[in-house]
Amino acid sequence: MKVGLIGIGGMGQHMARRISDAGHDLAVYNRTNSKAQALTAANVKVVDSISDLGRHASIVLSMLADDVALAAVSKGGGGLLASLPPGGIHVAMGTHGVAAIRELDQLHRAAGQVLIAAPVIGRPDMAAGGQLVILGGGLPEAIERCRPLFSVLGRHLFEVGTEPVAASVIKLANNYVLGCAIETIGEAFSLVRKHGVEASLLNQVLTEILFAAPAYKTYGQIILDRTFEPAGHKVVIGLKDINLMLAAGEAVGVPLPSGNVWRDRLIGAIAHGDGQRDWAMMAIEQARASGLE
Amino acid sequence: MKVGLIGIGGMGQHMARRISDAGHDLAVYNRTNSKAQALTAANVKVVDSISDLGRHASIVLSMLADDVALAAVSKGGGGLLASLPPGGIHVAMGTHGVAAIRELDQLHRAAGQVLIAAPVIGRPDMAAGGQLVILGGGLPEAIERCRPLFSVLGRHLFEVGTEPVAASVIKLANNYVLGCAIETIGEAFSLVRKHGVEASLLNQVLTEILFAAPAYKTYGQIILDRTFEPAGHKVVIGLKDINLMLAAGEAVGVPLPSGNVWRDRLIGAIAHGDGQRDWAMMAIEQARASGLE
Amino acid sequence: MKVGLIGIGGMGQHMARRISDAGHDLAVYNRTNSKAQALTAANVKVVDSISDLGRHASIVLSMLADDVALAAVSKGGGGLLASLPPGGIHVAMGTHGVAAIRELDQLHRAAGQVLIAAPVIGRPDMAAGGQLVILGGGLPEAIERCRPLFSVLGRHLFEVGTEPVAASVIKLANNYVLGCAIETIGEAFSLVRKHGVEASLLNQVLTEILFAAPAYKTYGQIILDRTFEPAGHKVVIGLKDINLMLAAGEAVGVPLPSGNVWRDRLIGAIAHGDGQRDWAMMAIEQARASGLE
Amino acid sequence: MKVGLIGIGGMGQHMARRISDAGHDLAVYNRTNSKAQALTAANVKVVDSISDLGRHASIVLSMLADDVALAAVSKGGGGLLASLPPGGIHVAMGTHGVAAIRELDQLHRAAGQVLIAAPVIGRPDMAAGGQLVILGGGLPEAIERCRPLFSVLGRHLFEVGTEPVAASVIKLANNYVLGCAIETIGEAFSLVRKHGVEASLLNQVLTEILFAAPAYKTYGQIILDRTFEPAGHKVVIGLKDINLMLAAGEAVGVPLPSGNVWRDRLIGAIAHGDGQRDWAMMAIEQARASGLE
Repeated sequence: MKVGLIGIGGMGQHMARRISDAGHDLAVYNRTNSKAQALTAANVKVVDSISDLGRHASIVLSMLADDVALAAVSKGGGGLLASLPPGGIHVAMGTHGVAAIRELDQLHRAAGQVLIAAPVIGRPDMAAGGQLVILGGGLPEAIERCRPLFSVLGRHLFEVGTEPVAASVIKLANNYVLGCAIETIGEAFSLVRKHGVEASLLNQVLTEILFAAPAYKTYGQIILDRTFEPAGHKVVIGLKDINLMLAAGEAVGVPLPSGNVWRDRLIGAIAHGDGQRDWAMMAIEQARASGLE
Repeated sequence: MKVGLIGIGGMGQHMARRISDAGHDLAVYNRTNSKAQALTAANVKVVDSISDLGRHASIVLSMLADDVALAAVSKGGGGLLASLPPGGIHVAMGTHGVAAIRELDQLHRAAGQVLIAAPVIGRPDMAAGGQLVILGGGLPEAIERCRPLFSVLGRHLFEVGTEPVAASVIKLANNYVLGCAIETIGEAFSLVRKHGVEASLLNQVLTEILFAAPAYKTYGQIILDRTFEPAGHKVVIGLKDINLMLAAGEAVGVPLPSGNVWRDRLIGAIAHGDGQRDWAMMAIEQARASGLE
Repeated sequence: MKVGLIGIGGMGQHMARRISDAGHDLAVYNRTNSKAQALTAANVKVVDSISDLGRHASIVLSMLADDVALAAVSKGGGGLLASLPPGGIHVAMGTHGVAAIRELDQLHRAAGQVLIAAPVIGRPDMAAGGQLVILGGGLPEAIERCRPLFSVLGRHLFEVGTEPVAASVIKLANNYVLGCAIETIGEAFSLVRKHGVEASLLNQVLTEILFAAPAYKTYGQIILDRTFEPAGHKVVIGLKDINLMLAAGEAVGVPLPSGNVWRDRLIGAIAHGDGQRDWAMMAIEQARASGLE
Repeated sequence: MKVGLIGIGGMGQHMARRISDAGHDLAVYNRTNSKAQALTAANVKVVDSISDLGRHASIVLSMLADDVALAAVSKGGGGLLASLPPGGIHVAMGTHGVAAIRELDQLHRAAGQVLIAAPVIGRPDMAAGGQLVILGGGLPEAIERCRPLFSVLGRHLFEVGTEPVAASVIKLANNYVLGCAIETIGEAFSLVRKHGVEASLLNQVLTEILFAAPAYKTYGQIILDRTFEPAGHKVVIGLKDINLMLAAGEAVGVPLPSGNVWRDRLIGAIAHGDGQRDWAMMAIEQARASGLE
C-alpha cells in the first residue's frame, strides 16, 4: 500500500519504521525536516510538503502532539484538506479534543474525504513493538481499507463506532482514568512513606491484587525507580491532555473533579521546572506537598 | 485449634463458617446475639460475653465495622484486654485507623498480650470462598501461630512487618486507591455517556487493556448494572474509611486531595438517602452532578 | 470628544447612554444591529461597520463578552486594527484573557496604535449609575486622553501600570476572589440550613463583621432572595471567566484549586439547565449536592 | 458579679483582665497553673481546681482550644458538671464542634445546669480591647444574666437562638468562610505575582472595592507583610477548626469542597514545619506549590 504519515515524534518514528518494514510504500512529512531524514535509511521517502503526501497516497496518517498541530497540517493552502484526493482518508492517530475532531470531520466530509480518528493506547516502546491498542472511529469501509496498517501498528483494534469523535472521547476518558490512577498512586505512596512503610511494599500489594494491571504496574514502577527521563509522556503533554478532557466535560456539562487535582499537580511540576519529565512527576509534586522532597 | 471471633457481620459470618468447617473449635460473640444464633447449626458456640471467649481460646479474631466498636470490645471490664490470657493474641481484621491500632497495640503489650493487625482485601463473596487477601502486621511468632486460620480465610497472606500499624496503613492506602478508582470510573462514565458513547464500551476498553484488574472489573460492572444492593461495601462504611485515611494523612502531614473528591461524593449520596447502598453510588452522585439522573 | 463603542450588551448599553448624556459624540457598532437602534433616541449614532467607527473617532472602546468577540472585532479586513487611525486608541473594557490582551497589544503597537486594557468592576446597575471601578493598564498619555470618558463611566480609576496585561491580570484575580467568595457563601449557607439555622442569620453575622463588604452583601442577598434572573453575570460568562483565570494560572505555573471547585459548580448548573441565570446559581448547585433542593 | 474562667491562653488572658478590670470578682483555673499566676497582679484569684471555681461562682466561662479540652474540664469527678451549683451557667466561648456542644448541652440540662455557647469572632488584640463579637446561643434568661460580662468582653452580642448548637454552627460557618477567604487571597496573590504584578496592588483593589472588609484587610496585610509570628490563629488550630467544620457538614450531609482545599494547605504547612505559625501560612503553601518560595 501507498501510505503517508505526518509527524515523526516519539511515537511517529516507530510507526514509520513498522509500516515501512512491513513492505508498504511510505512517505513522511515532518515540520522539522531533519528529524525525518533518519528514516530514509529505512526506505522511507521524506517529502517537503503535505501536498507531496497527497500526491503519493490516498491514505495519510497523522500522529501529532496537539490540536494546533492538527489544524496546521489540515487547513490552509498546503494542508491535507487541500491535498488529499477525493475519497482519500485522513487517519488522525494523536490524542485530540472532541471539538477539533468534530470540526475536522465536517471539513473532510465537505471536501469529499474521510476522517478516521484512531488514537492509540501505549507508550513509545509499545509503538516500536507494534503493541499499540488502536481505538478506531469512522466509516466502516474506510476503517477496513486501513486495517492492514492498523495490524502492523497495533495488537488490537477497538472499533468504537462510525463517528470519529467517539474514538476521541474514549481515548480522552482512558487517559483521564490513567492520570487519576497515577495521581492516586503518588498520594498513596506519600502516605505510607511518611508512616515508615516502604512504598514498594504497597506497590506489591496493589499490583498483585486489586490493581494487577498495566496502568498500576507501569507507573508504580516508574515512581519507585524515579525514571522520569526519558519521558514516555511528558508533563506538558499530560497538561494538554487534561485540558482537552476538562473541555470535553465542559462541552456536555460534566464536572471532572478528580482531574482538577492532577491538573494542579502538573502545573506545579512545571512551576518547579519539571515540564519535560514524565507526567508521573505528579507523584513528586504530591511528595513535595507532603514535605518529603 | 480453639478460636474466638467477635463480630458476625457481612464478613464475619462467612469467616466463622469457614473456620468451623475447617474443624476448628470456634466460639463467637456478637453484640446483637440473635445474628450469631444462625451459626449454631454450623457447630459454632455462641457465647454471651467477651470474657467467655477469653476462657475458650487464647486467639481471638475481631472483624468490626469501626474503631469505636474495636474500642468497645477491647477496653473496659468485660473487654478483650481484661479477658485474654497472658500471651493471648488479638487478631484485629477490620479496617481500623492508625491511631486506634497504635493505641491498642500498646495496651495489649502492657497486658502481656499480642495484637496482630490483619485487615483483609475482599468483599463478602470472597470471604465466603476463602479468597481474601490478608495483610498481616505483628510479631512473626504470633503470625505463625495464626497461620492455620489465615490459610482457611484467605488465599494469600502478605506479611507487612512487625508493627501492627503497618498493616493498617497499607490497608487504608489500598482502600484509598480503590475509592479513587471507583470515583474515577464514575467520572469517566459520565463523560462518555453525555457524549453519546455507551459506558460499557469504555468499560471494555479500560478493563481489557490498562485497567485489566479486579478493582476496575468489579466496580465498572457494578456501576453499569447498578447493583448497588445488596451493598458489598456501604456508602457509610466508605465514609468511615476515607475519614480514617484523611486522619492517617493528617497525622503525618500528607494531604490527600483525590480522597476529598470522593468523600464529598459519599456525603452527597447520604444526603440523597443512599447511605446504605454500595459505595459505588459515588458514580451516581457524579451522574447527578452532571444532570444525568 | 468623538468616541466609538463596540458592544451594546448588558454593560455596553448603559455605558453608551452615559457617554452620550455627557455630551460626547458617540458612534456605536454592535454585531446585532437591532440592539443598537434603541440608542438612536439617545443621540447615539449607530454605524454598520467597524470601519465607520474608525472614521468617526480615534478612541474606540470595546465591551465584549469574550476573547473570540474581541478578536473578531479587532482582526481581519474590517476590524479595528485595520480601521483605527495611526495613534488611535482601542480601550478594551471587557474581561479578557492575558494571552488575548498580550497578543492584541503587540498587534496594535505594530499598527501604530495603542491598546489600553480597562476592565471594570461592577454589575450593570453600577454601569447605569456611572459607579464602575475601572482598572486601567497602558501608556499613561493614552490613559490621560481617555480620562474624561473614564470619569463618566466610573467612580474610580485604578492605574495599574503601563502594560495592558496587568489590568487583565488584576481584573481576573479580582473576579477569581469573587467567584470563590460566592461559592463559599453557598457552602456555608447549605451547612447552616441543614443544621436548622436560617441562612439569613449567618448572612447577617458575616456581612456585619468580618465580611462587611459589597461582594458578600450583594451575593449573600441574591442567594437568600433567589434573584437569579435577570442575571447580572451569567453562569456561562462566569465559566468563561474561570477558564481565563485557570489559563492565566497555567501560563505562569500557578495552580488555582479553589477555582476548580466553583468551575465544577458552574458546569453542574449548566447541566441542570441554568446556564443563563446568575452565576450565584453555584450556591444552588451546592444545595443540590447537599440534598436540599 | 462573681465569675469563674477556665483557660488562660492567647484569648483567655485578655478576657480575664477585662473582667477583673471591670470590677467583677474573678477566679481562674488553668491546666498549666503557672500561666495563670501572672494574673494575680490584676486582682484575679487563681485556683487549683475546677471544684474551687464552682464554689466561687455560679457562672463559669470556658475559653478552650478544642473539644478534648472542653470535655476534660466538664466531665469526670472534678469537672464542671460535678462542680457547678444547680442553676449554674457554663458559658463555652471556644470554637467547638456541634457534636460536642450538643452532648454537653444535654449533660448540663441533666445536671440542672445551663450551657450557653458563646463563641467569639476576633483575634487576641480584639479580645484585649473588648472588641470581640459574641455569638450567644442558649436560654434567653441565662444569656441575660451573662450580659454584663459579654458587654465587657465584646462590642456586640448576636443572639442566635435558644439552642447552644446554633451558636456553634454559625461560628464554624463564619470561620469556614474566613478560611476560604484566606486561601483565596493566597491563590490570587500567587497568580498576580507570577505575572509580574505586585500583590499589594491587587490587595489595594480588593480591599477598596468589593472586599473592603476586615477579613480581607487583615489577612491581605498579614500575607503581604509575612507577619506569621506571633500567630493570631495557628495553623494547627485552623486544622482543628476545619476538621470540626467538615464533621459538621458530614453530620448533616453537606459536602464542603472549598474547605478541602485549605485543609490540604494547612496539612502541607505542618509538613513543612510551620504548624505553630499563623494559619495565613496557607498562602505560603500556595506560593510553594507555584514554585515561588
